[in-house]
Amino acid sequence: METNKNFSLNCPLPIDKYSHILMAHGGGGKLMHQLIEQLFLANFPPVNSVSHDSAILDLSEKKIAFTTDSYVVNPLFFPGGDIGLMAVYGTVNDLAMVGAKPLYLSLSFILEEGLSIDTLWRVVESIKKAAEICQVNIVTGDTKVVEKGKGDGIFINTSGIGIIEHNLQINPLAIQEDDVIILSGDIGRHGIAIMAVREGLEFETSIESDCAPLHFTVLNLIKEGVEIHCLRDLTRGGLASALNEIAIAGQWEMNIDEDSIIVAEEVKGACEILGFDALYVANEGRFVVFTPEREAEKTLSILQKENPHARVIGRVKKANKGVVILNTVMGSKRVIDMLSGEQLPRIC
Amino acid sequence: METNKNFSLNCPLPIDKYSHILMAHGGGGKLMHQLIEQLFLANFPPVNSVSHDSAILDLSEKKIAFTTDSYVVNPLFFPGGDIGLMAVYGTVNDLAMVGAKPLYLSLSFILEEGLSIDTLWRVVESIKKAAEICQVNIVTGDTKVVEKGKGDGIFINTSGIGIIEHNLQINPLAIQEDDVIILSGDIGRHGIAIMAVREGLEFETSIESDCAPLHFTVLNLIKEGVEIHCLRDLTRGGLASALNEIAIAGQWEMNIDEDSIIVAEEVKGACEILGFDALYVANEGRFVVFTPEREAEKTLSILQKENPHARVIGRVKKANKGVVILNTVMGSKRVIDMLSGEQLPRIC
Repeated sequence: METNKNFSLNCPLPIDKYSHILMAHGGGGKLMHQLIEQLFLANFPPVNSVSHDSAILDLSEKKIAFTTDSYVVNPLFFPGGDIGLMAVYGTVNDLAMVGAKPLYLSLSFILEEGLSIDTLWRVVESIKKAAEICQVNIVTGDTKVVEKGKGDGIFINTSGIGIIEHNLQINPLAIQEDDVIILSGDIGRHGIAIMAVREGLEFETSIESDCAPLHFTVLNLIKEGVEIHCLRDLTRGGLASALNEIAIAGQWEMNIDEDSIIVAEEVKGACEILGFDALYVANEGRFVVFTPEREAEKTLSILQKENPHARVIGRVKKANKGVVILNTVMGSKRVIDMLSGEQLPRIC
Repeated sequence: METNKNFSLNCPLPIDKYSHILMAHGGGGKLMHQLIEQLFLANFPPVNSVSHDSAILDLSEKKIAFTTDSYVVNPLFFPGGDIGLMAVYGTVNDLAMVGAKPLYLSLSFILEEGLSIDTLWRVVESIKKAAEICQVNIVTGDTKVVEKGKGDGIFINTSGIGIIEHNLQINPLAIQEDDVIILSGDIGRHGIAIMAVREGLEFETSIESDCAPLHFTVLNLIKEGVEIHCLRDLTRGGLASALNEIAIAGQWEMNIDEDSIIVAEEVKGACEILGFDALYVANEGRFVVFTPEREAEKTLSILQKENPHARVIGRVKKANKGVVILNTVMGSKRVIDMLSGEQLPRIC
């Protein structure tokens, strides 16, 4: 099972003769139980071998992080990832952004009647593999089915619990004057990978999503003693929206340098064709770190082991209202506002 | 704000001129942030006043329960409840079924483009009210928007965290020979309330859903020292499916008495018209308790304070395979199997 293509080899098809999802797979009866047992519990065995309404978990800490995300990405499979992998990495990354160690995920499906069970199986296999990579356990779940035309194949919700083992305050209000803003790598890959598939565009080199779990890197920064003030992953709305959210939350002026923000040539080219600004394009494996200047070198050396394009991209100073200013490569200054229209629907 | 009718009085409509959900409300930009701030954060302020990727929670116990459910009930509003109230009570009840004290919920929406913001507001108000009744906090959330025709108004996922303050083993494998099965009230109300609206049926008396939080009752049973072996709420698939699940999990033969299972006359009548068996109809405020015979009287006295129709409905004995046998009012015996087709789609 090294590639997507082979994922479905082990699918216990057909589930009681049915190769597609029926309304009865969500009805509470035999078909639903078979689906749960053969597809879900087979891949995600219950904690303590007891299947019940809730998972019971013994934590090693009383301070925890809790997050949730629903995934409606379209298409379900794309270069560099799929909805299942995103549902694991995305939620794990939200836990990572408060410096938590992710431990447990819930997994809830809303399936559209008529969905191929083979497709569902491929997604489940991807979830399993992603959870193994992240070292998290899927401990509780749910499945609903809606009529054909009332959903869109597969929607997934994952909620996550992580433990907090550090004493740092990591949040927008912990940022301090003169903190540097460090970007963990090049931007724009995820959004462009999705849009290229959706628009049927072909580029000379295939652009893959940057989907990746971020918690190992973050926990490493913490272990190495970096004084992290704030973290934020650059999903919907991209780098521009993430910075604006934080700037507004803490009334900061952020000055960022365009020439330190790396965008791969093929992503730049696709942005031009599609009319996108890479600053607003979603990423699924990139984040920003706010930390004092003195921590910049250590932070960069850790981040650059993962991605050579990690850079200090700017600095923070106190202001009367949140604003993000881009120093362009042309030497001008441009206010980078939050996205006002809609750029990339159903990107995650 | 005593009745559903008045829920929308405080709706901060229009959200930036828009009275309906647009794709951009899920796009990560300004409209999404306005929606989140004005509709969600206004009702569910963030823990410690910090809005971030994950909520950080201080627990008083290291043993926790964790559960998830997605809600796709159709219609969104029905006699006795709505999708918002269900999304709170349903998840709280899953925590109650392991004897946990529910504390925190996540709240994730998948909205269909074109949804009226007023409808969303009514649902959010209902969630707020239900969370107050349950004494739980909504601490983290997410919003996605899908194109018109790719969803159905509102889908909600709530995941829940509760703490376990008791030392009981409450699960299907903790049941013992000769345990009695106690049903907490009359059955069939929720499924019939939904189907009556959906089918446009009118009965002489309006049948309301039994939607209710169960954790106060369960925690009371625990506080009063009842030796609970297993609990299960009777949602999708009804009493019959719940008993079958548990019978199969522990290889028990369950003998239940039809004349001890109370079904309201109007629910019976509706079941006849619709061709349903009340044993399989979903409930949202009923559960079964498995406990030793000596605990029956105390358990009943606590349950009957909530619902006078609580009864001992049967007993458990060891078997080679799980089976549920109904002793009918006619004096015959009938095996009650798990639902095999589909009876009530999108009941929760």
